[in-house]
Amino acid sequence: MREDIQSFIEQMTLEEKAGLCSGLDFWHTKGIERLGIPSLMLTDGPHGLRKQSSSPDHLGLSDSVPATCFPSAAGLSNSWDRALIERIGQALGIECRAEDVAILLGPGANIKRSPLCGRNFEYFSEDPYLSSEMAAHHIMGVQSQGVGASLKHFAANNQEHRRMTVDAVIDERTLREIYLASFEGAVKKAKPWTVMCAYNRLNGEYCSEHDTLLKGILRREWGFDGFVVSDWGAVNDRVKGLTAGLELEMPSNEGKGDLSIIQAVQSGEMPEAVLDQAVHRLLSVILKAANSLEPAAAFDKEAHHRLARQAAAESMVLLKNEGSILPLRREGRIAVIGELAVKPRYQGGGSSHIHPTRLDDIFEEMKRTAGESAELIFAQGYHLHTDDTDHLLLEEAVRAAASSSVAVLFAGLPDRYESEGYDRTHLNIPYNQVRLIEALSQVQPNLVVVLSNGAPVEMPWITKVKGVLEAYLGGQGLGGAIADLLFGEVNPNGKLAETFPMRLENNPSYLNFPGEGDRAEYKEGLFVGYRYYDAMKIKPLFPFGYGLSYTSFDYTDIELDKKEIQDTETVQVHVSVKNSGDRAGKEIIQLYVRDIESRVIRPDKELKGFAKVELQPEEEKTVSFTLDKRAFAYYNVTLKDWHVETGEFDILIGKSSRDIVLCERIVVRSTTKINRTVTRNTALADVLELPDAEPLIRELLQESPFARVDAQDEVSAEMLAAFVKFMPLRSLTAFGSSITDDRLERLLLVLNGANSEGYEEES
Amino acid sequence: MREDIQSFIEQMTLEEKAGLCSGLDFWHTKGIERLGIPSLMLTDGPHGLRKQSSSPDHLGLSDSVPATCFPSAAGLSNSWDRALIERIGQALGIECRAEDVAILLGPGANIKRSPLCGRNFEYFSEDPYLSSEMAAHHIMGVQSQGVGASLKHFAANNQEHRRMTVDAVIDERTLREIYLASFEGAVKKAKPWTVMCAYNRLNGEYCSEHDTLLKGILRREWGFDGFVVSDWGAVNDRVKGLTAGLELEMPSNEGKGDLSIIQAVQSGEMPEAVLDQAVHRLLSVILKAANSLEPAAAFDKEAHHRLARQAAAESMVLLKNEGSILPLRREGRIAVIGELAVKPRYQGGGSSHIHPTRLDDIFEEMKRTAGESAELIFAQGYHLHTDDTDHLLLEEAVRAAASSSVAVLFAGLPDRYESEGYDRTHLNIPYNQVRLIEALSQVQPNLVVVLSNGAPVEMPWITKVKGVLEAYLGGQGLGGAIADLLFGEVNPNGKLAETFPMRLENNPSYLNFPGEGDRAEYKEGLFVGYRYYDAMKIKPLFPFGYGLSYTSFDYTDIELDKKEIQDTETVQVHVSVKNSGDRAGKEIIQLYVRDIESRVIRPDKELKGFAKVELQPEEEKTVSFTLDKRAFAYYNVTLKDWHVETGEFDILIGKSSRDIVLCERIVVRSTTKINRTVTRNTALADVLELPDAEPLIRELLQESPFARVDAQDEVSAEMLAAFVKFMPLRSLTAFGSSITDDRLERLLLVLNGANSEGYEEES
Repeated sequence: MREDIQSFIEQMTLEEKAGLCSGLDFWHTKGIERLGIPSLMLTDGPHGLRKQSSSPDHLGLSDSVPATCFPSAAGLSNSWDRALIERIGQALGIECRAEDVAILLGPGANIKRSPLCGRNFEYFSEDPYLSSEMAAHHIMGVQSQGVGASLKHFAANNQEHRRMTVDAVIDERTLREIYLASFEGAVKKAKPWTVMCAYNRLNGEYCSEHDTLLKGILRREWGFDGFVVSDWGAVNDRVKGLTAGLELEMPSNEGKGDLSIIQAVQSGEMPEAVLDQAVHRLLSVILKAANSLEPAAAFDKEAHHRLARQAAAESMVLLKNEGSILPLRREGRIAVIGELAVKPRYQGGGSSHIHPTRLDDIFEEMKRTAGESAELIFAQGYHLHTDDTDHLLLEEAVRAAASSSVAVLFAGLPDRYESEGYDRTHLNIPYNQVRLIEALSQVQPNLVVVLSNGAPVEMPWITKVKGVLEAYLGGQGLGGAIADLLFGEVNPNGKLAETFPMRLENNPSYLNFPGEGDRAEYKEGLFVGYRYYDAMKIKPLFPFGYGLSYTSFDYTDIELDKKEIQDTETVQVHVSVKNSGDRAGKEIIQLYVRDIESRVIRPDKELKGFAKVELQPEEEKTVSFTLDKRAFAYYNVTLKDWHVETGEFDILIGKSSRDIVLCERIVVRSTTKINRTVTRNTALADVLELPDAEPLIRELLQESPFARVDAQDEVSAEMLAAFVKFMPLRSLTAFGSSITDDRLERLLLVLNGANSEGYEEES
Repeated sequence: MREDIQSFIEQMTLEEKAGLCSGLDFWHTKGIERLGIPSLMLTDGPHGLRKQSSSPDHLGLSDSVPATCFPSAAGLSNSWDRALIERIGQALGIECRAEDVAILLGPGANIKRSPLCGRNFEYFSEDPYLSSEMAAHHIMGVQSQGVGASLKHFAANNQEHRRMTVDAVIDERTLREIYLASFEGAVKKAKPWTVMCAYNRLNGEYCSEHDTLLKGILRREWGFDGFVVSDWGAVNDRVKGLTAGLELEMPSNEGKGDLSIIQAVQSGEMPEAVLDQAVHRLLSVILKAANSLEPAAAFDKEAHHRLARQAAAESMVLLKNEGSILPLRREGRIAVIGELAVKPRYQGGGSSHIHPTRLDDIFEEMKRTAGESAELIFAQGYHLHTDDTDHLLLEEAVRAAASSSVAVLFAGLPDRYESEGYDRTHLNIPYNQVRLIEALSQVQPNLVVVLSNGAPVEMPWITKVKGVLEAYLGGQGLGGAIADLLFGEVNPNGKLAETFPMRLENNPSYLNFPGEGDRAEYKEGLFVGYRYYDAMKIKPLFPFGYGLSYTSFDYTDIELDKKEIQDTETVQVHVSVKNSGDRAGKEIIQLYVRDIESRVIRPDKELKGFAKVELQPEEEKTVSFTLDKRAFAYYNVTLKDWHVETGEFDILIGKSSRDIVLCERIVVRSTTKINRTVTRNTALADVLELPDAEPLIRELLQESPFARVDAQDEVSAEMLAAFVKFMPLRSLTAFGSSITDDRLERLLLVLNGANSEGYEEES
């Protein structure tokens, strides 16, 4: 195909080549009929197909053809289930083929820096490892059907506010370890056909023309070989973007961007080879997509709905279950309260908003699953369109709850509270819902709240209810899934992919979100999500990785196949997990790594592995993890590479980030030689870490005034010791010392000479 | 004198001039006998004179002549008493004259970024306004006696760990508003004869050779006209330092630095004029000091001790007084417990450690003040030299407490816990003291703890005791002061000049203190001290500005003389304060300013005024404050100046930072014209703030595709509104728009043309 492409390029005019670098309209690439190059369709995702009907408006907001609405990413990631995500990806791919869509835009791998980001429901996690694994398997599923995915929004699009102009200012290490790592794993593992660049700037440059990001990191370092497409309208300077590696501008630029490319080539401002390379990359994907796009038969809507329902059940998280209020007994009167029970919130607003093939009615699904021995009654309780309490509705709901043996209240965020395009400003649910919870709790102690929302909310009311099921945005099968979970048809098995804070101010980005004007400084650095709550010892409302089950699991026998490795080796970790309760269930086992001591600031622990297993009562399985260098490494900005410090690490096995149940220690030895240059301003403590430095330094110290001081008392002795330990070498020549600068210079030569052979860093 | 100096310089050889730029020995400048230029002595401070006896060792650690030991700065600042600080400064100046000392090193105006900094006891506050006021009045007092002060450590020397090599990385606004502001007020108000540069680097440059810091800011902006002296051993590159404005290197460089200056002049690397200017500045101060140094008689040791005792009482803060356990009744048996009661900790370790003229025995002072109706017994309770519990001592103390009607335990930090030279790593008091508190509380509910420490400690035991008196490091008169306060001879009137956190992790610098190797990033930015606790809504153990009294005060009638001002005007604020209790007392009234709305990130409120008044029972006084532009301004890094945003501000009057009792609003109008350049990437929301922009933008919007979209539903309508509001101007030409780039360029010309006339910013 490579030769074909070359031959196409040779036959193309400059205008045709420039034209291929932008869309035909809102959703299609340009075809070139005379050469047989097809026009392909790209369509919004990621949790369902948003293919606009025949006459799209200019902004792509009009209605779309029916498609299966799966849970949004914020829910799906709670499944921690790679295989499930992949199956959903496959289903999405099948629907694309049925609709003649070549590329499905998504998944989104942006990190949840703040719970306020309006688009968090489209993203997976606050943790880059979990996020990258979820994104990778989504991509693998879609692309297994011959449909391209588009990993987005690359990079650091972590807020909606001013997203088209804001500059995300992020230090290099944080960028690498948190924000880019989430993309890196997905690109390397799943090889997406396309990557979508973000609207925002990153450290001063628009992502749509960010040379280091698109060329240096994405292509050279990570080996990306597809094309980069702009987020819709993200292009600033078309020629600069093309040069930096942005191949496809979307939507159509009405010829304006094409013309600037043509002029740049003609004027010599940009070599034609740059354009040829872009066209080569575009054609590689276009031809691959065209070849694999067999017009599929209509997809099996029922099967996809069943998958959506299963996925929804695995996406939901049981947060509280006091006195085992859940599962509900299928008898007596059950009050179902809240407009959300009949007008479910199952997806987010914006470009991912789709037209579902069908939609579960939660109340109806609950009635069906509860069976005939139970009597389910419904009360609306509140209006979704306002925060004001409707007292008639409230009183009706209170009466319904009082007359029942249990009440299930459906609460959460209305559409108007969260959407693509703007951020939230608080973490509250509407006040009329809070008042309702309080009123119901006065008359009905058996109160369960089911929440629908795309991101964390505060729950000042949580002590007033016995059960909380967090349903996130569950897609079209949410009703059946909620019924299955509430009545125990399915055992809850999701765990949170993000921290629920007690209150907004606890979030690490709080002081700097959404920034000042067009500048958002990520001053919290590495300390995103649980990394921050751990370090600051802040108790979250619910920690990362947390979720309850109707059964219980016992963890035993952590085993490492080696107690010490070099950083070029891997280590195997085995753990036994047993279902010690009386129901079948699934458990998510989490592996975190802690560096015991480090020269650099590191989080307390970081997620480096996870597995999900299904266990029958009394069944036990051994779960295995393989850890390589990356599991122990941090990004060293001097080396410009991942680096492991020689030393001890703890392997932690947890039920959640705050419930570590097993721990084993390992020594990892670095194989990287680090040369440190000693200068007159290197502290003695640092010099003394060099091999053979100690006698040289000792000799000079003996001649220095520091050898002749009698510290007066305990205080001065300790102060003197600290002073000498951390004083720079130059201080050996000061304070009335007879040691000359020449002598110091000679010492530096020796130290740097010895050092130049390299030495293995030791901790 | 100016001409004299010029004539001296003309008579000096190059060698003599270079030589004048460094010390003769550890404590003296060089004299030039043939010209009659005297050698002057500089001596450590700041809370007492540390003049070393005749044969100093080479590191200046040997014993010193007796001098009055006043409370250290961390204590003194709790007095919030400008006049008191000034009187202490005068006393210090008198002692200097008696000892023929020309310059007293201090005060220290470094900000308490972290409670861990080992030298915090030498600094005033976490707040730059309070710190600068205290420093200014200290300087004014010293210099009123014809003795020079040396304001230190300039700048950002906020940790001891690696202080000689660490680079403090601080954004410009934070540096200006927090770390430099603390020096700025003192330099402008008190005109110190000398400033001492810090050991550390600031944003990459050693402070000892930091051109912007020493020349640009200190001299040009603030009008400093004395000389800059190095912290002892702080010089890195002597010639670079001299060029940047470091006139005096201390201690003696044994001719090495002098030689490098000579060579630099001879080689032409540095113009001789630079050296001449430095010599001019040195001679200005040296001659002024020599002229004013009359050999004073021996100072009045008793009077100075009385002042030290009074200052100590005003430096201490009553933190807890449950059930009015204090003041103690002068009858019955009182158990006095703790080695600190007889071996008091009254000053910190390091260069400020002095030899007091006398030292109160706390136990003896208590006995004297209690009088004969009370029986005071003593038990040691613990050893200061270890953290281990001595069970015999513990049991003896428990017996003493059990047999008494009240127990007063002296606890706090031993010398080995805090000192110049190294930082603390936790906020605990020794564990044997904690165990003792617990044991005593089991047998004696009437338990009072008196703390001696230079910086905050955690108090997990606080619920077990009824009273806590924070004595800080009270100087040689601490015993009498403690007795006065405990028995009510003096009504407690100190308030905290720093926040006491519940736990170390609550401190804003926690994640980045003391940094990585030689790099300390101040990522918490402006949010130092109460600015952070306020913003993050973290409840401190005791807030900034907090302190109890044996009487009560009522605040009424806040009045502003204007409701609206221009930023060139001032506003007068008046408040009535009444002593509503039955004892005379002093009250510290605090004024904070809050910006209601701002384009930039600002703290919730900032201290901008304070006053201390003494009131008899039922007496009422009106306290007045004057606020100018600076009280409302932030440092604008684009303007490179202080700037007030036009808008509303709240004037808050508080008993502490967390006990605001009165509030009045004012409008401040900026008189600064700000020109904003509009580019194709300026967000519409920002453009619309320009005068006359609205109709131009509206016209283009009408022609754009955004005018033709029917949002599908509520969600999309809100999203669309947010999208349009914050989209950049260039988006008007995209999304299939017929608006051309030329048209956009013409719009920019108009907008920037209109703008170039300047406009007054409005909020």
